[in-house]
Amino acid sequence: MLFRSDNVTAVCDEVIAAILAENQGDAAPYGADDTTARLDAVFGEYFEAAVSVHPVATGIAANALALAAAMPSPGAAVCHRNAHVNTSESGAPEFFSGGGKLLMLDGGHGKLSAEAVDALVRAAAPERMQSAPPTAVTITQGTEAGTVYALEEIAAIASVCHRHGLVLHMDGARFENARAALGCSPAELSWRAGVDILSYGATKNGAMCADAVVIFSDRPHAAQLGRFMGQRRLRAGQVFSKMRYLSAQLLAMVRGGVAGRNAAHANAMAARLSKGLAAIGGVSLLHPTDMNEVFVSLPGNVREALARGGFPVRPRPDDPSAVRFVTAWNTAERDVDAFLAAASSLEKVA
Amino acid sequence: MLFRSDNVTAVCDEVIAAILAENQGDAAPYGADDTTARLDAVFGEYFEAAVSVHPVATGIAANALALAAAMPSPGAAVCHRNAHVNTSESGAPEFFSGGGKLLMLDGGHGKLSAEAVDALVRAAAPERMQSAPPTAVTITQGTEAGTVYALEEIAAIASVCHRHGLVLHMDGARFENARAALGCSPAELSWRAGVDILSYGATKNGAMCADAVVIFSDRPHAAQLGRFMGQRRLRAGQVFSKMRYLSAQLLAMVRGGVAGRNAAHANAMAARLSKGLAAIGGVSLLHPTDMNEVFVSLPGNVREALARGGFPVRPRPDDPSAVRFVTAWNTAERDVDAFLAAASSLEKVA
Amino acid sequence: MLFRSDNVTAVCDEVIAAILAENQGDAAPYGADDTTARLDAVFGEYFEAAVSVHPVATGIAANALALAAAMPSPGAAVCHRNAHVNTSESGAPEFFSGGGKLLMLDGGHGKLSAEAVDALVRAAAPERMQSAPPTAVTITQGTEAGTVYALEEIAAIASVCHRHGLVLHMDGARFENARAALGCSPAELSWRAGVDILSYGATKNGAMCADAVVIFSDRPHAAQLGRFMGQRRLRAGQVFSKMRYLSAQLLAMVRGGVAGRNAAHANAMAARLSKGLAAIGGVSLLHPTDMNEVFVSLPGNVREALARGGFPVRPRPDDPSAVRFVTAWNTAERDVDAFLAAASSLEKVA
Amino acid sequence: MLFRSDNVTAVCDEVIAAILAENQGDAAPYGADDTTARLDAVFGEYFEAAVSVHPVATGIAANALALAAAMPSPGAAVCHRNAHVNTSESGAPEFFSGGGKLLMLDGGHGKLSAEAVDALVRAAAPERMQSAPPTAVTITQGTEAGTVYALEEIAAIASVCHRHGLVLHMDGARFENARAALGCSPAELSWRAGVDILSYGATKNGAMCADAVVIFSDRPHAAQLGRFMGQRRLRAGQVFSKMRYLSAQLLAMVRGGVAGRNAAHANAMAARLSKGLAAIGGVSLLHPTDMNEVFVSLPGNVREALARGGFPVRPRPDDPSAVRFVTAWNTAERDVDAFLAAASSLEKVA
Repeated sequence: MLFRSDNVTAVCDEVIAAILAENQGDAAPYGADDTTARLDAVFGEYFEAAVSVHPVATGIAANALALAAAMPSPGAAVCHRNAHVNTSESGAPEFFSGGGKLLMLDGGHGKLSAEAVDALVRAAAPERMQSAPPTAVTITQGTEAGTVYALEEIAAIASVCHRHGLVLHMDGARFENARAALGCSPAELSWRAGVDILSYGATKNGAMCADAVVIFSDRPHAAQLGRFMGQRRLRAGQVFSKMRYLSAQLLAMVRGGVAGRNAAHANAMAARLSKGLAAIGGVSLLHPTDMNEVFVSLPGNVREALARGGFPVRPRPDDPSAVRFVTAWNTAERDVDAFLAAASSLEKVA
Repeated sequence: MLFRSDNVTAVCDEVIAAILAENQGDAAPYGADDTTARLDAVFGEYFEAAVSVHPVATGIAANALALAAAMPSPGAAVCHRNAHVNTSESGAPEFFSGGGKLLMLDGGHGKLSAEAVDALVRAAAPERMQSAPPTAVTITQGTEAGTVYALEEIAAIASVCHRHGLVLHMDGARFENARAALGCSPAELSWRAGVDILSYGATKNGAMCADAVVIFSDRPHAAQLGRFMGQRRLRAGQVFSKMRYLSAQLLAMVRGGVAGRNAAHANAMAARLSKGLAAIGGVSLLHPTDMNEVFVSLPGNVREALARGGFPVRPRPDDPSAVRFVTAWNTAERDVDAFLAAASSLEKVA
Repeated sequence: MLFRSDNVTAVCDEVIAAILAENQGDAAPYGADDTTARLDAVFGEYFEAAVSVHPVATGIAANALALAAAMPSPGAAVCHRNAHVNTSESGAPEFFSGGGKLLMLDGGHGKLSAEAVDALVRAAAPERMQSAPPTAVTITQGTEAGTVYALEEIAAIASVCHRHGLVLHMDGARFENARAALGCSPAELSWRAGVDILSYGATKNGAMCADAVVIFSDRPHAAQLGRFMGQRRLRAGQVFSKMRYLSAQLLAMVRGGVAGRNAAHANAMAARLSKGLAAIGGVSLLHPTDMNEVFVSLPGNVREALARGGFPVRPRPDDPSAVRFVTAWNTAERDVDAFLAAASSLEKVA
Repeated sequence: MLFRSDNVTAVCDEVIAAILAENQGDAAPYGADDTTARLDAVFGEYFEAAVSVHPVATGIAANALALAAAMPSPGAAVCHRNAHVNTSESGAPEFFSGGGKLLMLDGGHGKLSAEAVDALVRAAAPERMQSAPPTAVTITQGTEAGTVYALEEIAAIASVCHRHGLVLHMDGARFENARAALGCSPAELSWRAGVDILSYGATKNGAMCADAVVIFSDRPHAAQLGRFMGQRRLRAGQVFSKMRYLSAQLLAMVRGGVAGRNAAHANAMAARLSKGLAAIGGVSLLHPTDMNEVFVSLPGNVREALARGGFPVRPRPDDPSAVRFVTAWNTAERDVDAFLAAASSLEKVA
């Protein structure tokens, strides 16, 4: 279980406290409550921009609702071939958009390049009916390879997007981990870099069941994205009758720096783990450890050592020697060290 | 706010306790945790049948996923014109099924009759291509009119369904209120009456954000309904990474009689409210008060009296004199009595 | 077979000639041919407006593509309960729009009233998430009851539509029959009355397999309707590799007055039939015979007389005594007279 | 225009004659006519099997309807990355299936291998909810690279399919060209090789606007594919009111060997063209010329020579030196020779 993913964790104290504080008396349903009413303002302050915030219960719902708005039928969205929206959502973007299409690109360490996006969009000329017409680009920050786009990389993609009239969506399931890695503000990592609509992840970072679609309403390309978003969410089963309990989780994360602290801790634990593993003979990092995920290739003796130490590893289906370790807001330093000790135990013997 | 709906309530103590008890250590994500693993067995015992239980965050998600399974494109579902799936879900069944169609029937006090269903299905002969072919019937128990189908009424509809090879779905957002009203077992109100697939409502009855699709797997007409239900839920954003927190809510409701007690209390309060209102001059009940909803027509002086007493009423859009009052698991008897006192205050003066 | 429908007819000579004239040499596929290139200009002249014309093979395709553009998910369209789009297209509008919803109204003789539309749209306030938000109104001209909207009736509905920001779609499967009935120009019956997008029917009026979506591009509410219409049609299987053969049919219909002549003849035959039937004892017209459809209630002796004369009648499923008779571009006057003679034969005996 | 595609051609004489022969008197609409009634029997004889034949107006409609039946939501279909269904249908399979997903594989010369299909299906284990579950495999015969699967190659893929419970669909836009290349019977190239459902192409091979979905009803994996196919087609706008004109085209193609002769001629012309081009210095074939498509890389001087001779070539977007030439049922030998003379004119000079 250790380092399996950041979604195996319990809920952090601040979120539990917020839920319990919310559990007083009646409140209007479907988001008409006072807690939910504060979301736009609190997130607006957090992002230093006009935003509309739409709570959802899962990251897939956030991505799929955002893309459904950004690629209205018969539109298409450009993504990395290994993007979560393509590999791990069982067709959610296609489903939510009524048959939209993902147009995939390759790219090193999980990143799209602005050049590749530009070439694909140019090739799919609107007058060529055979191509589903791209209307959006979606990037994951931090990426599925555990790397983090630099702000300039995002801005370059955004520039291509907007030149072609496309919307830029960011899958921010680990937005806060990426932000902690870059040491930048929420604004810098989103709309200031050109992001129009964001899937903001809170669940992996310490919440119970709360993520959000955040629309930067004043962005020229975001103007239409919020139209009928209430109905869109409701028909998707993502308008909660007791909405306040989800809204309270979101507020607890962005208030008082909880989200940033949780993410920074997870990143630090991953750095410690990555550094320790890389020092073991035969171990190689598959991607830079930019945030809270470590992708490594482990030789047989290290895998055996870990298994003996009570840490069996789950190989990646496509490459048995490759493994992903994920740290979280509650990862204990002593667990990292115990894991590293186990991993290197056979090496020392040899 | 008083009597506005049963979804304005807070979460009951047993559910809060279950959530807090769950918040210990790590657990496998996406429903691979130990708590979720108990769902099928515990609900199986509760329903005295083989079941597969699929937690979702909203009743709309439960209905839409159940209907998507029961009316695979290009199928259609028969429903009451006032059914929640038709009037209050912003097209969720059409959306989840990829363009399925609802075929509507009228019927007194919110109920379909077996005869009307039979006639509609016969008229939509499979060889008439112009009609979307009915593959399911959906009924709401208790109904949108606050009434409760008798077991024989359900069995008669089920008989028509199955004779034509259709699936019977029950929208059980208030399943427990209906059950308390009938004094029957969960089995009697579901599969024994012929129900193949059930939207089981827990949120209105005291949970935080947990309902479930319950498939009665051994029913002949339910055999295919569960196929790929995992992927169906995941692509709909209804597979939660920290699933245990939803599963714990569901277990807390069916264990130890919580669900039944909460519902019975709500019903009792509605009966008290209904009886009190009916005794006021000029007030008439629009439907029998079978469970926890009271539909009344209020004369002007009663409306004015309520407003003076601090209880402004929200008229139904289609009939200004008609009002719905809903009681809940936490409705206080003293609040009912205060409300009744206010309602009759002008009458007494006159 | 006689009077069963106007879609049982063969193809008129002018259309056959146009198809044969087209069958010379190679031509660019998918609508890049010279014949298709003339469509916008020729129809533009016919309608006295800027139009974009999109050939399709069926009226259902025309309606569904038009509505998919006019009610982008999660939008909804207001229609008459007996509208073809609701009763006879097996869910095509719901399917093409990715789960859009039809919001139905009743209305005498197959017509919507501007007042009823206005009331429905007002009730479905955009802020009420439970309602699928109306974004379009669709009317059938001539109607499913064989009646024809007066120009002022259409203008009144259009006025309501546009006041609320909705698009007005006209299902013109029998546009030319309605136009012949009114004695007005194509422009008067469409954009001048406020229509934004039209399903133009040619097949029933003498073509082989050609209808069209006509978008009045300069109408303020039509501006976005044509976006990606090429891809929308192609993904729906409605972009034909040998498009010229469909385009030629459409051109043949609007050139030289063929469409108008064919429709006027059909109308005249229906008038003759209607007048003759109404003169028979016990026969009553169910709707005014405005164009080429006659809806009558026939007493038993007339039905029997027709059957004896070799004209068995197909009762309407919902009312055994009600029958629809449809005349067409090729209906022979002698056939009408023979039919009437048979219908009245038992009456004379008695 | 020369060799641009086989869909630029006019309609062959036999099809024109069939259309004209059909144009006599009235006929029941929507496929209830006598001509359409013969389809299943005539195609059944042609394929030596029980079949249900569903006429459609385009190959995209055939593919999308077949895949919608074969990958009911939330299913997925395995295809080649360059498959027409993926690259050239603007998302039609995703749209028709309500959000289905294409799972892509690479493979030399446009072909899938049974091994690669097996590996992909094994990796997408049904219990892994994140993957859209494969329920079908689709292959194109002849392929998008102008090659033709050997019967054993198809049988091997079919074997993998059926072992995993998947349906095998064949996109047979050029089924007859492939069949002529292999010298086999329709049965051998379809159900005897394991194909469950076929998109049968007639338009490119000489028809006007007629292709068909052919379901091999007796195949175990095809049993459910035809369910509600009538409604599925109707709601897709692919049930034609004057169906007889499409059915007549299909009958004309399979009767008297027209389809086979047309395809064999096209293949012979391509062979002549391919051989001639390959003999020119610097020209290389990119794929074997198995049927009526020639994929070549042309050096600059050959391109220039062709342009001078009045045969400008359209480069492939992804590789400027690569060109596709397609021959058709009506390609003239003298045109091939003139083209070859032009192509080699600069070579001879040099």
